[in-house]
Amino acid sequence: MRFDFASDNVAGMAPEALAALVAANEGYARAYGGDDPAARAAELIRARLDADAEVRFVFSGTAANAIALSMLAFPFEAVLAHHAAHVCTDETGAPGFFGQGVGLIGLPGPSGKIDPRALEAALAEPDMGHRQGPAALSLTQSTEYGAVYTEAELRSLIAPVKARGMGVHLDGARLANAVAAGFDLKAIAGLGVDVLVLGGAKAGALCTEALVLFDRSLARRIDNRLKQAGQMASKGRFLSAPLLGLLETGAWEAHAAHANAMAARLAEAVALRTRFTLAHPVEANAVFVRMPAGEHRRLNDAGWACHRFDDGSVRFVCSWATTVEAVDDLVRTLIELD
Amino acid sequence: MRFDFASDNVAGMAPEALAALVAANEGYARAYGGDDPAARAAELIRARLDADAEVRFVFSGTAANAIALSMLAFPFEAVLAHHAAHVCTDETGAPGFFGQGVGLIGLPGPSGKIDPRALEAALAEPDMGHRQGPAALSLTQSTEYGAVYTEAELRSLIAPVKARGMGVHLDGARLANAVAAGFDLKAIAGLGVDVLVLGGAKAGALCTEALVLFDRSLARRIDNRLKQAGQMASKGRFLSAPLLGLLETGAWEAHAAHANAMAARLAEAVALRTRFTLAHPVEANAVFVRMPAGEHRRLNDAGWACHRFDDGSVRFVCSWATTVEAVDDLVRTLIELD
Amino acid sequence: MRFDFASDNVAGMAPEALAALVAANEGYARAYGGDDPAARAAELIRARLDADAEVRFVFSGTAANAIALSMLAFPFEAVLAHHAAHVCTDETGAPGFFGQGVGLIGLPGPSGKIDPRALEAALAEPDMGHRQGPAALSLTQSTEYGAVYTEAELRSLIAPVKARGMGVHLDGARLANAVAAGFDLKAIAGLGVDVLVLGGAKAGALCTEALVLFDRSLARRIDNRLKQAGQMASKGRFLSAPLLGLLETGAWEAHAAHANAMAARLAEAVALRTRFTLAHPVEANAVFVRMPAGEHRRLNDAGWACHRFDDGSVRFVCSWATTVEAVDDLVRTLIELD
Amino acid sequence: MRFDFASDNVAGMAPEALAALVAANEGYARAYGGDDPAARAAELIRARLDADAEVRFVFSGTAANAIALSMLAFPFEAVLAHHAAHVCTDETGAPGFFGQGVGLIGLPGPSGKIDPRALEAALAEPDMGHRQGPAALSLTQSTEYGAVYTEAELRSLIAPVKARGMGVHLDGARLANAVAAGFDLKAIAGLGVDVLVLGGAKAGALCTEALVLFDRSLARRIDNRLKQAGQMASKGRFLSAPLLGLLETGAWEAHAAHANAMAARLAEAVALRTRFTLAHPVEANAVFVRMPAGEHRRLNDAGWACHRFDDGSVRFVCSWATTVEAVDDLVRTLIELD
Repeated sequence: MRFDFASDNVAGMAPEALAALVAANEGYARAYGGDDPAARAAELIRARLDADAEVRFVFSGTAANAIALSMLAFPFEAVLAHHAAHVCTDETGAPGFFGQGVGLIGLPGPSGKIDPRALEAALAEPDMGHRQGPAALSLTQSTEYGAVYTEAELRSLIAPVKARGMGVHLDGARLANAVAAGFDLKAIAGLGVDVLVLGGAKAGALCTEALVLFDRSLARRIDNRLKQAGQMASKGRFLSAPLLGLLETGAWEAHAAHANAMAARLAEAVALRTRFTLAHPVEANAVFVRMPAGEHRRLNDAGWACHRFDDGSVRFVCSWATTVEAVDDLVRTLIELD
Repeated sequence: MRFDFASDNVAGMAPEALAALVAANEGYARAYGGDDPAARAAELIRARLDADAEVRFVFSGTAANAIALSMLAFPFEAVLAHHAAHVCTDETGAPGFFGQGVGLIGLPGPSGKIDPRALEAALAEPDMGHRQGPAALSLTQSTEYGAVYTEAELRSLIAPVKARGMGVHLDGARLANAVAAGFDLKAIAGLGVDVLVLGGAKAGALCTEALVLFDRSLARRIDNRLKQAGQMASKGRFLSAPLLGLLETGAWEAHAAHANAMAARLAEAVALRTRFTLAHPVEANAVFVRMPAGEHRRLNDAGWACHRFDDGSVRFVCSWATTVEAVDDLVRTLIELD
Repeated sequence: MRFDFASDNVAGMAPEALAALVAANEGYARAYGGDDPAARAAELIRARLDADAEVRFVFSGTAANAIALSMLAFPFEAVLAHHAAHVCTDETGAPGFFGQGVGLIGLPGPSGKIDPRALEAALAEPDMGHRQGPAALSLTQSTEYGAVYTEAELRSLIAPVKARGMGVHLDGARLANAVAAGFDLKAIAGLGVDVLVLGGAKAGALCTEALVLFDRSLARRIDNRLKQAGQMASKGRFLSAPLLGLLETGAWEAHAAHANAMAARLAEAVALRTRFTLAHPVEANAVFVRMPAGEHRRLNDAGWACHRFDDGSVRFVCSWATTVEAVDDLVRTLIELD
Repeated sequence: MRFDFASDNVAGMAPEALAALVAANEGYARAYGGDDPAARAAELIRARLDADAEVRFVFSGTAANAIALSMLAFPFEAVLAHHAAHVCTDETGAPGFFGQGVGLIGLPGPSGKIDPRALEAALAEPDMGHRQGPAALSLTQSTEYGAVYTEAELRSLIAPVKARGMGVHLDGARLANAVAAGFDLKAIAGLGVDVLVLGGAKAGALCTEALVLFDRSLARRIDNRLKQAGQMASKGRFLSAPLLGLLETGAWEAHAAHANAMAARLAEAVALRTRFTLAHPVEANAVFVRMPAGEHRRLNDAGWACHRFDDGSVRFVCSWATTVEAVDDLVRTLIELD
């Protein structure tokens, strides 16, 4: 079975991440997040974002997102998110677990982007005691379906939310890919995002996500919060150093650019050389190809691990590790499936 | 500041763990725990324990313990544990968070070992609707104060608990050190432990603990449980491979034996060559030295990071990385403090 | 404003309930559920159900349902329910709060009855670690839209669920109305229901619901569970006595029969004498009339409090207190709206 | 068995409460807290307190206290309270359930009053990531052991807490008895209490406690919060009317004065006419008598239901319903026990 395109999580650490981990492994270091790589990585993240923020490193995007949402909504409230967002579909109800029942209100929109009219309609609903009214908006950049919001699009979604005094969470598991597609990291703070999850794992680090709190009032006893939630690394350098390696060398962006380029190459070949069509615009590192269940099975049988999504498309994900040869191999198989 | 003895968590990965991680980082691997190192490490753990069990790898001992307790006690019940156990004093209330309010009943006993009479007394309390009655026992091997339970001691604590149909959790963050001190891993299942947390981080792995479920009825949808709790590694090999490296090579036990030997060397020197006395028997990798707050401060000022505990003793922890030179340096400082 | 038909909760206690409360108020009584009326009401409920069961009296249907679901599903699992069921739409996410994030899977079907094919499809979904798979089925009798399941319908829904080892909850907030419509209470236990919430408040008692546990293994430390959840009445007789009054006198069923008859009278008049149509079959105590938002507003302006539901119909609820005159008044207004 | 002195919860509703309930039961009323008695009772409470506040009526003191604490402390924080306070010893861990693991720090002090030095010591503890640091103070007036704080005593406890920006909860389950003992309700808001639970049940109402939020910022979506927590009465008048009856007539204070007088009579007789001694000053409605377990059993055998507490004293509670004859009967039995 070839796993090249099965998920963002099939590749290992990128060389820069591994090298930084090996280097940081030397000697003794403070435990529980007090390590030097953590301080330096946090500094680099603030510089990238051109903003002050409290930064912590956690093990899991699921936990990072759920903890972020628990900061923005009470258990008797809900979070607005795209119905296909990771928090809605792929985290086994983690927002409800970490948020003690906090609700999710799924919104529609093309390619994982929330339709502003759907958001406005949800915000216009009257508050009722027996429903969980919205308290925050959760956005994903790039989206589950490989699209990238423009700054203007994000602004139009965030503005009405902030106008009502609600909070904003940005799930940036694939933020590096959005950056590689032209999105400006320095815009995030100004847009009104309160909590950002800046992705490391999919970008080639260890299982590391940075929890970035622009709104420092949310950071009250943040280390206690993370410790209680099982997200405080005893040996923190293992989390921080690999991400530091990517950030210091620029590999965080460079690898994402490579992943996006591989996705573009695959998308172009699918569109031009196979009878399959693309289900979504390919703006980041994922390619969604419309494919009936039967053909998906045949593709699996031909040795390619890949998932078929609820919208009837099959996803192929590229990463720092994706090779031109693998793309070409996959395209050949797709042509032969014809 | 010298961190050599500050905590179990100041050392990096042991060479065998790092080598296994570097090797496992090559190529693609299944995500979310489906990786080969996970399967092999689980097999080795079952073999070490000479028992069938469901095994998963999680990021955090705090989470592993709290999840284990949430399997054994309802929110309206409590867990019996030594009052100085990690779950009681060092996990920021994680059992209550993961267990939605599950209570802890702290029991006394020397050197972190529960006194059987205190346990019997707690078990004899009548059940009352307005109290959280005990539903499980949590044990720690080796204990927070560096002692090692004998098999007979564990049996005498577990028997009355199991006789009442209650569950048993064993926090084995430093289980390797207990093994190096003569404790037989193969005894655990037979003693009636339902859930074991087998420690990796303190033994020289990455931040990895193995959650071992002897009672498979507790494993219902275990992957969903871990995913929701933020303890399912997207790139699972990063967790499993380092621990596999330690287990395959025997380094898990060998390094613990080294750590114990260093602790014994330190303890002997303290007892014979300084005016300080030992606060607890030194049976594993930690040495607790009775020391007034003022002298603890002078030791810190002299450059040695170390913590003073509630019982008025200062802890020095040894690990795979501890050197004879460091032990001798510390002893010299202790003598000079005189 | 006339509240006659606004909700099940606008009427007071029925005379039999009030009389029993006044009588029970005399003298001293054991606290915390140990009162005589509780024992006698529980006995009458078991007799009505012709089944052994643990019975407790709680303050709130929301809490009763949520506690029931928390007994049947883990936080990382979900409960199957009609998408219009009270647990899904009217309890502010209580199942997630009491169940620490337990999910709900909404199923379609006419008039609040779950379509068996939708249930089968949901049960056939493969289990995946990143989704909350179903662990229980929640049914409502009579339904939110005033329909009554036949025994055969319930059997066809429960059978495939029990075959998979899952649990079944029955929300009987309006169970008396179902009984008055011909549903046999004695069938419930045999159908495989594990937890029943037998409604008191809507039937004319105080805010009292009986939590009925047919599966006694779910009753472990049930008093502790209720106490912790704020559902253990300090002065229990206030909860039990009014319901006892209804049960002892047969008023529980008789009042429901009256309410159903009033609903039938209203439904008939709407169908024959107004230009409005019924949105759902009228089998219990509620009448749903298709009505555009504008006309609903005019009806409100004419002094009748009533709610318009998501399906575009306006609900009129009858109770023990509904009078023929009120029905006729409402019909007159509806005719005049024409 | 005579229950006269067994608990605050063995007496029924006082006549004024019952009369108000019977009167309010007439006709239709808005559901879910929108009833007129609720509005009027809230107004009377604000007048009594001479302060603006959001007021809601809930079923259970356990829930009221736990919800209050969940407003003041995050799950990874703790609440300071007397170790014998109801929240610590008699609510089955409800603060942890409603507060998702929020911790309790028990403080010593005579007769249920927190010792200010113990409070200062707890506040002086350094914040550490692995402990649940204090975020709020919970006080009880009158205390579990029947004592009444003076205004000055409360001020000295509240001041250092507020100085650190922490919140204050006052459990007033027996607040009426404190008032009858001379405590001024109008002082509460000025003292810095953020959330007050004003007791109804023990004062002769139905199971009703008023949740009083002086800090309105805590009231965000309070109806949703209560609904989700199962503490929103569907038929709200049943909760509000009895308490309204007590407040309107002054019976809330008058009955408490009677209860206190009965306690004083009992205390005096115990001190003067029996060989038993009082364990605590008798300032409210409870009398604690030092009594060995054997004599307690004999008293039970003699037909008097009463509880022996952890401090080795037996509690006798008086209420609006306590008669002089019952006091004298009890005293006679105590003399005969000699």
